[in-house]
Amino acid sequence: MNLLDHIHIVLVETSHSGNIGSAARAMKTMGLKHLRLVAPQQPIDEQAEALSAGAKDVLDNSQMFATFDDAVADCQLVIGTSARLRHLQSTLIEPRACGELAISRTRQGNVAIVFGRERVGLTNEELLKCHYHLNIPTNPEYGSLNLAMAVQLVSYEIRMAWLADDDLQKKLQNQPLVEYPTSEALAHFFNHTERLYKELGFIRNDGVMQKLRRLYQRAELETNELNLLRGMLTAAEKAAKRDLN
Amino acid sequence: MNLLDHIHIVLVETSHSGNIGSAARAMKTMGLKHLRLVAPQQPIDEQAEALSAGAKDVLDNSQMFATFDDAVADCQLVIGTSARLRHLQSTLIEPRACGELAISRTRQGNVAIVFGRERVGLTNEELLKCHYHLNIPTNPEYGSLNLAMAVQLVSYEIRMAWLADDDLQKKLQNQPLVEYPTSEALAHFFNHTERLYKELGFIRNDGVMQKLRRLYQRAELETNELNLLRGMLTAAEKAAKRDLN
Repeated sequence: MNLLDHIHIVLVETSHSGNIGSAARAMKTMGLKHLRLVAPQQPIDEQAEALSAGAKDVLDNSQMFATFDDAVADCQLVIGTSARLRHLQSTLIEPRACGELAISRTRQGNVAIVFGRERVGLTNEELLKCHYHLNIPTNPEYGSLNLAMAVQLVSYEIRMAWLADDDLQKKLQNQPLVEYPTSEALAHFFNHTERLYKELGFIRNDGVMQKLRRLYQRAELETNELNLLRGMLTAAEKAAKRDLN
Repeated sequence: MNLLDHIHIVLVETSHSGNIGSAARAMKTMGLKHLRLVAPQQPIDEQAEALSAGAKDVLDNSQMFATFDDAVADCQLVIGTSARLRHLQSTLIEPRACGELAISRTRQGNVAIVFGRERVGLTNEELLKCHYHLNIPTNPEYGSLNLAMAVQLVSYEIRMAWLADDDLQKKLQNQPLVEYPTSEALAHFFNHTERLYKELGFIRNDGVMQKLRRLYQRAELETNELNLLRGMLTAAEKAAKRDLN
């Protein structure tokens, strides 16, 4: 089953049926097909169908719910959109992170992305029932994003994350697994290096080891590389020891 | 001047004035304000103004051109959108890369992002006049993206790139400039390493140097780190030479 099929777009009390149609079209262009409607103010009418263009199947298969709670009942992750930041700082995410999060969670269950009413968005009570709160970083002087446009942007980022995930899975399948050393093995190498180069008189302060640690940590040293560096260290040590002794 | 002000959204022979209005709104939500129209089939009418919502200023300030050439005449970079891939493989970019490219080029001049007719897009002749060709990776089974939706997605990626650029500039201002070694300096270090460890009998084939090069290239070795590694090499060499001689 396609990971995208675990994602549900939920529209709460939408005023204009045209927006439902445009949202369906936006979803389908990005490969999403599960639309849930919570008590829409207008039914799926001709206007909705006209604006859905070739995405009438998304409208036909949409599910109707009486309440927000019902619409997200079977979802393990609920992300609510909010133009107003209010008191939600700690759970705020942007569309890109939303796409990545949604895709990563589809392996564990259903994900709902919930869009509120055209004028007033989601209520505080509804927002509190969401795990994360999506904020689209619009122009601070004009953030008036149409409902279907917001659905388009989020669906796009979900698709981008899905394509990237797909690429990653393929890469992981084709690549030999890289082995990374334990912290203990790294510590042993750093200690050995410090000991030898102190004996050689090259290390006279803490700066050297700090720089070396930073370099090799940044490089995410692989096990075979660590083994190589350890071999070089031992070779240098042998030569030096013959001299020092 | 804001980098976003160097970006021009160009709509070619748009059929429906409503799409012009929706595109203006989409642009403004992302902070873009320069709209250029090439021979639109309908004038900016009530429908356009209604759909522009609070972005009437973008419509009012839009510029009208008779031809594609006129509309992009003062632009150093022209990116054309194309749903059909055709023969353009080498110049194809996706929206994210388009946003990054557009922002990076705004420092050198004007950038035009050109959207074609609703039904048939840009002509081959027009596409050949573009430096890059933008393709939005839509659902292969249904890629029917509304014109204004496409403008919304691209404007969004431009804004994301602009925000990231802004963050980067701030970081660069706060960070001491990192110095990186020349290829010559790196080559000298690798040669020196190879010479010594061959003498020490540690290097017996090409694999060692290949691994070391890969490691230090991946780490993007800084000048101060290279100096440190060279110091260690010299210290090891001195100790070894006393022994070898």
